[in-house]
Amino acid sequence: MTQMPRLKRRHFLVGAAGASGAAIVGLPNVTLAQDGTPLPDYVAWKNADTMIVHSPETLETVRGAIGTSIVTPNDEVYIRNNLPAPDDSIVADRDAWEVTFEGLAEPMSLTVGQLKTVGVETIATVLQCSGNGRKFFEHEASGSQWETGAAGCIIWSGVPVRDLVAMMGGVAEGMDWLTGTGGEEIPEGLPPETVQVERSVPVAMMETAILAWEMNGEPIPLAHGGPLRLVIPGYYGVNNVKYIKRLAFTAEESPASIQQTGYRLRPVGEKGAPSQPSMYEMSVKSWITGPLMDAATGKVQIHGVAMGGTSAVETVELSLDGGETWADAPFVGPDLGPYAWRPFVVIADLEAGTHTLASRATNANGDVQPEDFPPNERAYGHNGWRAHAVDVTVA
Amino acid sequence: MTQMPRLKRRHFLVGAAGASGAAIVGLPNVTLAQDGTPLPDYVAWKNADTMIVHSPETLETVRGAIGTSIVTPNDEVYIRNNLPAPDDSIVADRDAWEVTFEGLAEPMSLTVGQLKTVGVETIATVLQCSGNGRKFFEHEASGSQWETGAAGCIIWSGVPVRDLVAMMGGVAEGMDWLTGTGGEEIPEGLPPETVQVERSVPVAMMETAILAWEMNGEPIPLAHGGPLRLVIPGYYGVNNVKYIKRLAFTAEESPASIQQTGYRLRPVGEKGAPSQPSMYEMSVKSWITGPLMDAATGKVQIHGVAMGGTSAVETVELSLDGGETWADAPFVGPDLGPYAWRPFVVIADLEAGTHTLASRATNANGDVQPEDFPPNERAYGHNGWRAHAVDVTVA
Repeated sequence: MTQMPRLKRRHFLVGAAGASGAAIVGLPNVTLAQDGTPLPDYVAWKNADTMIVHSPETLETVRGAIGTSIVTPNDEVYIRNNLPAPDDSIVADRDAWEVTFEGLAEPMSLTVGQLKTVGVETIATVLQCSGNGRKFFEHEASGSQWETGAAGCIIWSGVPVRDLVAMMGGVAEGMDWLTGTGGEEIPEGLPPETVQVERSVPVAMMETAILAWEMNGEPIPLAHGGPLRLVIPGYYGVNNVKYIKRLAFTAEESPASIQQTGYRLRPVGEKGAPSQPSMYEMSVKSWITGPLMDAATGKVQIHGVAMGGTSAVETVELSLDGGETWADAPFVGPDLGPYAWRPFVVIADLEAGTHTLASRATNANGDVQPEDFPPNERAYGHNGWRAHAVDVTVA
Repeated sequence: MTQMPRLKRRHFLVGAAGASGAAIVGLPNVTLAQDGTPLPDYVAWKNADTMIVHSPETLETVRGAIGTSIVTPNDEVYIRNNLPAPDDSIVADRDAWEVTFEGLAEPMSLTVGQLKTVGVETIATVLQCSGNGRKFFEHEASGSQWETGAAGCIIWSGVPVRDLVAMMGGVAEGMDWLTGTGGEEIPEGLPPETVQVERSVPVAMMETAILAWEMNGEPIPLAHGGPLRLVIPGYYGVNNVKYIKRLAFTAEESPASIQQTGYRLRPVGEKGAPSQPSMYEMSVKSWITGPLMDAATGKVQIHGVAMGGTSAVETVELSLDGGETWADAPFVGPDLGPYAWRPFVVIADLEAGTHTLASRATNANGDVQPEDFPPNERAYGHNGWRAHAVDVTVA
């Protein structure tokens, strides 16, 4: 099996311009991602060798960068920002960041420093963009052409929202939604509701949601929503509001476009509307992360990751013949809980020729990863195993 | 509770020389660690704000940098190299690195690429230097004056040694030791056995040991032993041989000084000898990571980490009065297995004044973290709870 050498070249770079991960001559510190684009300044600390830059606000993790040790290092986690990240002055004194709570018996405002004295929970979740897998649809949808790399598995620490609710006397009557508002600056001249990052999720999600300040052992980086991010386990990335400045229990869904018409699953050609399903629960899914193209004859290590969505992943099957036959693949490593993904590994003996390797996950609810996923206007939610399969040529 | 702001200043640095984490004017990219020393080149990618440089080969993680989300990010993990790290050319093609296996029925040499096709296991372990806590001893021992920061919790992926043993027909008769040899270059003019990093552990450790190529989701950085490192779960760091180039089942312990006389627990003033206990099994231990000095009045989040050593940590107790009274502290987050540490958190109401906060762990074997640890020549293995306690002044 061949593997791309993954030298860390983020620092003290020398080399020819044009090579991925190399410095641009005369411009020290500008590193090129896998696709040859420089890393934007605010994410210049990312591991360039593992990133693809789709746009300044959308960076994808290279498929083969995901290994078998569960967590995705912060410097390899994808970026998808709906608005530019705020100025980094907001992380100069993280504990001073303030959040307003509304729609409770005793609403109040608390700083991060105060939140830290209410309670702490640590949970592992898959963070995944709704559009992950967009490139696998047959129709051409606008937006970043994510393959598998708008997803990572992260361990967060923060305060349980239910503890805050208890502290503030409970949710006020008739509040069916939990609405989070991001602290991004609204570009001048735009009506706030058209661009404001504000998402509402069913109020029941308060039972598992946390307001997180830590990500994989360090304060959440600004680009990932620090100093404080709402984490809704099992829900697509967009619901995990960054730089959260307001957490409100509301009678109605947010009026923001990102809630009303954005992130809605709908037939191709249709406009977004509140009547359509919102991108909430992630679905059962798996994909192979190696080998991706070529392998040497003889034994080959096939590995990938499998997630259950809102219910724990229970099994994953592997096919070496494009889905004709399947066999269970063993998970490796500790189970980090129902919202984490689990790596799987199979050592296989592949004959010379081209093999189509596919994986198919099943969660505790009994949901099985489907063969295909229907087209939809924004190309969201693809979890079809066939499109995620890889053709590997054994020499 | 106050907390040091932990801005990430590793990249694109501007600022006055002298401040920790700041750039030296005129020397872009030289970042100063917490103690004001520049990070050595080979670890320039470390998070300077979280590191203390004791020497070019010994860097400690700041006590307060350890949070509650279990894993220690690679750029915050301590460094302790017995010899300078090899040239980074050895990680240019990681899969080409070769290891020689000896003392088996059918000994052979295998590349990392080949090892990856034998089997994979993912385990979380505490990596800890034998000298962690040296500063807490009353006598003055030479060596880096580590406090709590020569330890981290890491998820590794690699091949189980027992799978390799099975593949090579089993261990040869009479081989009582598993001996790993590091790939560091021996400085010219020195007899190899005086400086060679070669450690022997009891042969039974082959049941849990792995040869690891991945560390917290990425290929093991050179400074941490990449492309391949021997990991002996539950054993002190020195036994986890970096750049491993030879794994031998041997009849005798290695003749290297680091095995024969180094890393031996012995009375103060005595010379090292093979008859003394070697620094193998880690012991039950815990320490508070915040708050460390000051806190505001009212509720305070007290957090720390607890490890069991070679047996899983089962409980940890917290004392707010210097060990007069104790109460169980709850763990947070998923359990990553018997060799990982677990974070614990207590929200306490502290009155104005100075409080001595202490923690005391118990493992599944029933071993309880002792109040003190006896002095020994090299100041190894300190796990006494009293010396690890912190005085916190509440305003």
